[in-house]
Amino acid sequence: MIFAKAHGTGNDFVVLPDPYGELDLTPQLAAALCDRRRGIGGDGVLRVVRADRDPDGARMAGDADWFMDYRNADGSIAEMCGNGVRAYARYLVTSGLMPAATARMPIATRAGVVEVEIGPEMITVGLDRPRVGGSGTATVAGSDYPGLTADVGNPHLVCPVSDAAALDALDLGRTPEHSGDGLPAEVNVEFVAPGEPVEDADTHVHMRVFERGVGETLSCGSGACAVGAVALHRIGRRDGVVAVDVPGGRLTITLNGDRCLLSGPAVVVATGEVDVTSLLRTAVTTG
Amino acid sequence: MIFAKAHGTGNDFVVLPDPYGELDLTPQLAAALCDRRRGIGGDGVLRVVRADRDPDGARMAGDADWFMDYRNADGSIAEMCGNGVRAYARYLVTSGLMPAATARMPIATRAGVVEVEIGPEMITVGLDRPRVGGSGTATVAGSDYPGLTADVGNPHLVCPVSDAAALDALDLGRTPEHSGDGLPAEVNVEFVAPGEPVEDADTHVHMRVFERGVGETLSCGSGACAVGAVALHRIGRRDGVVAVDVPGGRLTITLNGDRCLLSGPAVVVATGEVDVTSLLRTAVTTG
Repeated sequence: MIFAKAHGTGNDFVVLPDPYGELDLTPQLAAALCDRRRGIGGDGVLRVVRADRDPDGARMAGDADWFMDYRNADGSIAEMCGNGVRAYARYLVTSGLMPAATARMPIATRAGVVEVEIGPEMITVGLDRPRVGGSGTATVAGSDYPGLTADVGNPHLVCPVSDAAALDALDLGRTPEHSGDGLPAEVNVEFVAPGEPVEDADTHVHMRVFERGVGETLSCGSGACAVGAVALHRIGRRDGVVAVDVPGGRLTITLNGDRCLLSGPAVVVATGEVDVTSLLRTAVTTG
Repeated sequence: MIFAKAHGTGNDFVVLPDPYGELDLTPQLAAALCDRRRGIGGDGVLRVVRADRDPDGARMAGDADWFMDYRNADGSIAEMCGNGVRAYARYLVTSGLMPAATARMPIATRAGVVEVEIGPEMITVGLDRPRVGGSGTATVAGSDYPGLTADVGNPHLVCPVSDAAALDALDLGRTPEHSGDGLPAEVNVEFVAPGEPVEDADTHVHMRVFERGVGETLSCGSGACAVGAVALHRIGRRDGVVAVDVPGGRLTITLNGDRCLLSGPAVVVATGEVDVTSLLRTAVTTG
């Protein structure tokens, strides 16, 4: 089975080219591939299939050539992943599945068709504007961090801290407790420290994220969108550009009307072949 | 750059075939390859080079065809790795660098030439007998666990717990504190619970390990050797066979005279090509 390993700001993926939809990607196989020690390792799997060859993609085949079949690292199906679709687009071009000169393309996802813009280093995906909501509080090691909720399709709680040193000092080894208007039992929590002025951005912040069900990660696309919307809200603006430094690099969020552009680097690091028999044998025998 | 990903009981490695010693494997490149999100991911790098083509291997070229150039995940040079040499041997056979029918072979390492025995699933490496030493104590979450020290070239502290449930309950998210006769500031700590009788072994234990400078891992070859020696010591025997279940699978330790055989599965999961330019660009720009 052919694969690639790709990442966007440290959010990493096992990419499986399957243009004709012939691959039987079971939850067990997806989880074994994402196992970081006994498999390839990744935050998720991106199966690359022609939209007209996939039951979930077929309804969008008129609008997009390719469907992103995204799976979480536990093998479950997921709707969308902002950094995932950026990595997916990079793979389409580096693999030759789309012409190298492709500058824009629509990609079908379970959350609908998204538009992607491809540069030599940056890849930008257009998403819906996050909806900034009411107040909430995260608690880490006995300290309360009041913040604002944001809905990016999934629930977020964005909590400011005083400065970068306070951000670095946070212990995110355990799930932060939280409370807040209409928040479910599990949310993604972003902690945000003010940054320095940077070129081409209205404001700049540093962010660390605790993803629900996962733990702290190097990057989270929807988290960066939530943080961008809240950062503009705090300076009294609705539209603008926010530079968001995550532990894995810099993402740029542009809010304009009902749109939210998520932009940043995305690379394919390796390509190769998986020995599925060895993979599943050691995955099965060692649990 | 060609690579493979291999593991032995969940101890995983980036394998780099370099028969003629042409590769410039800098510490930066080794660390970037081992990065689990922005690289391939591994506990270390195994560079596969002919002994006569490597400055560190040349003195052993009369005794072994191949030299294992082992690097830690931070890029630093290491002498030996028991699970690493097992994965290395599996790669030599699956890649065709040694004939598929090879049953035994010597492999040169920085700690000298080791003998490896290759089966269809298991690979066994012959190491020096661990030296069981004096007493020591590990402390986890305020509880003391008295144990015995063992020297396997590197320092170990082996601490029994009452049963498998107590072993599972240990919080190894932080470095255990320790004290003990002649132990350095940093040691590998193994916690051991009694197992059930198993075929072909004199005793059976469950083990979890905290590797110094790394954290909890799925497996540790030298740790399993230390645990095997201590387990036999506790039942009043010098030689014998111990089944050691680590989180990543089962290792079997055989003590006989001055020798210690470390045996277990080792597989090559994937092979492919790394895009070094993309790898180093994202490693550099994102720290």
